[in-house]
This record gives sequence, structure tokens and C-alpha cells, in this order.
Amino acid sequence: MKFFDVQSRTRDQFVNITAQVQQTVHALGISEGTVTVFVPHTTCGLTINENADPDVAADMLKQLEAMVPLQQPFYKHAEGNSAAHIKASLMGCSLQVIVTNGHIDLGVWQGIYLCEFDGPRARRVWVQ
Amino acid sequence: MKFFDVQSRTRDQFVNITAQVQQTVHALGISEGTVTVFVPHTTCGLTINENADPDVAADMLKQLEAMVPLQQPFYKHAEGNSAAHIKASLMGCSLQVIVTNGHIDLGVWQGIYLCEFDGPRARRVWVQ
Amino acid sequence: MKFFDVQSRTRDQFVNITAQVQQTVHALGISEGTVTVFVPHTTCGLTINENADPDVAADMLKQLEAMVPLQQPFYKHAEGNSAAHIKASLMGCSLQVIVTNGHIDLGVWQGIYLCEFDGPRARRVWVQ
Repeated sequence: MKFFDVQSRTRDQFVNITAQVQQTVHALGISEGTVTVFVPHTTCGLTINENADPDVAADMLKQLEAMVPLQQPFYKHAEGNSAAHIKASLMGCSLQVIVTNGHIDLGVWQGIYLCEFDGPRARRVWVQ
Repeated sequence: MKFFDVQSRTRDQFVNITAQVQQTVHALGISEGTVTVFVPHTTCGLTINENADPDVAADMLKQLEAMVPLQQPFYKHAEGNSAAHIKASLMGCSLQVIVTNGHIDLGVWQGIYLCEFDGPRARRVWVQ
Repeated sequence: MKFFDVQSRTRDQFVNITAQVQQTVHALGISEGTVTVFVPHTTCGLTINENADPDVAADMLKQLEAMVPLQQPFYKHAEGNSAAHIKASLMGCSLQVIVTNGHIDLGVWQGIYLCEFDGPRARRVWVQ
């Protein structure tokens, strides 16, 4: 297992980590199989989505906030970031990517994103 | 890694792909372990849910649309399918299934679905 | 593949299964790699989230219910638990955990939860 670090810059941000995942797969020496990408955090997640138009990530973040309001009268968690925990579980903290000939196999329009919901923060990404 | 193709017939549709996944696992010659099922697309996803009453899939699609409206004043993505991108990430584009004695292990009521959110389209499913 | 059983106690509940997953990884004799955790059910899911403050799980369950109402005029599924099916797919029924030196690798604040949405019920968790 190897890891790399990511610094998010705003509270809610999709950070494209496709290149770092590819570099880590190379460093691990994996040529065929499946790798697990995992974030050891509870207020950020991982997703694979559009890598071409940055408006997609912006629209996704706004809609996630519309679905999961930052404030709710019933939130009890004292740190005040319950919305970030919920969004993290909606995206998930692990995903699998297929590797062929040493390259991660993604669709033409796909990129791998760390989904920051409680930034800016230093985050770590594990690849196995 | 092998793949199969799926043709969705409407904009929003859960397509049962359980039999094709099983056939592909057989073609790959896997008898024990875990397979990754992956869609290389950004406006459809994968889920495992009820395989008995088709009303479940219909209710799920309607509720997803209630949560993620097709139109929002803040959507900027020019293709007009931001809702499909969001629903795809909510379901996820990869899932893992356990294989025992050459058969995919599912619960009695479970089936594997391709979740089309921007059809009708020709989609590809990868199995590794 | 091995399994363990979980008894949920209320309709909606996050049950911490981290210790059972660790015990099952030990029983399987896995020292390095990735394990798949899978629930063979359609009205409960799995997630990894905060293991410290129980208010986080309570807030997540309340917000999931705010997003996915128990009753909707359009629900057709005769069993009346469509909301549970939808929440199960939002969380997902499988997840992957990295294992190092025989121990599951989680972040400091992470725990593994079975997400019950249609309890109380006896549930089974598969680990491969």
C-alpha cells in the first residue's frame, strides 16, 4: 500500500486526483488487476465523474448542498460539520479501478476526484 | 477483463444485468474471489437492489428525481444533464461481487442493475 | 468467505461492525491485501464514517430521512419500505477495506457501520 497527499483549498471542492492515482499504481508496480483507492477520513469522499467540463463538479457540489443543508434544526454533532459527514457517505470513501498494462482503465470522460466537504484541509489517499 | 454491452430504452431506467455479469464471470474462468463491475460512463451508475418487485426500481427512480431535480437555477453545465451526473455519483460506477464455485454470491432478493440516468444510450460494462 | 450476524434494534440504526470485520479478517487468515465487506440484503447498507461522537450517526439518519421520506404519493411498492431500498442504494451494499499485517487499515476517526433502514432485523455480513 502506498499513499499520496492532497491539499484542498475551499470548504467544498472536487480535487482531480487521476494523475496521482496513476503515478501510485506505477510506483506499486501493478500491471494487471484492480486497485482500491481509499480515503482515511470522515468528511471527504471519492467519486469518478466528468473530467472535461468543470461546470459538472460545480453543479454537483451545489446540488449536494441543496440536498444536504449545512444547517438543520435536528443536527446535534457539536463540531457543526454533520453535512460533510453525510455527503462523504453519499459519495463513499473507497472505490475500485481496473488496471491494464500498468494503466488505470477509465472511460474517456472519467476522472477520479477527492470530494472535499470540510476544507480546506490536508488529506491523504491510500492506494492498494 | 471482459465487457458486455447494454442498451437502455428510456431516460431513467434500472436495467437488470445480473445474468450478463454471471456469464462474464464464467467466461473469465473465475471460480473463487471477488470481481469488480465497472461502468466507464459519467451519467449512469451501478447498484444492487431488489430483483423481485419492479415497483422498487420505479420508486427509486422517482425518488432520485425528487431529490435531484432535472432543472435547477444554479446548474451551469451546458449539456443540460447535470442531474444525471449527480445521480451517477450517488449510485457509484463500480461495485464488488463475491464469487464462490464460479457463481456470483447475491442475497435471495438481490439483483445487479445498471442505473441509466441519461438514456436511451448504448452502455458498456467492464468485469475484472 | 466467512460471515457474521448482526441484530438491529430499531427501524433506522447505524450498527458499528468494525470489531466483527476485524475478527473475521483474522479468522480468514488474511495478512495483506483488500477485503470486500458485503451485505446480502436490499434494505440495509454499509458505510464508513465517524466512530467517536454518536451524534454523527444520529444526524446522518435524520438527514437521510429528510431526503428520502418514508411516504411519498408516488411510491407503489406494496411492502411500504421503498425509502429503505433507496437509502440502502445511497449507502451501497459493498465496501473495500485495506488490510496490513493482519489489521484492517482505517483512519483514526473511522468505523465500519451496517446501516439498518428497515429494522429491527437479523442481518448477515459477508467478508471475502
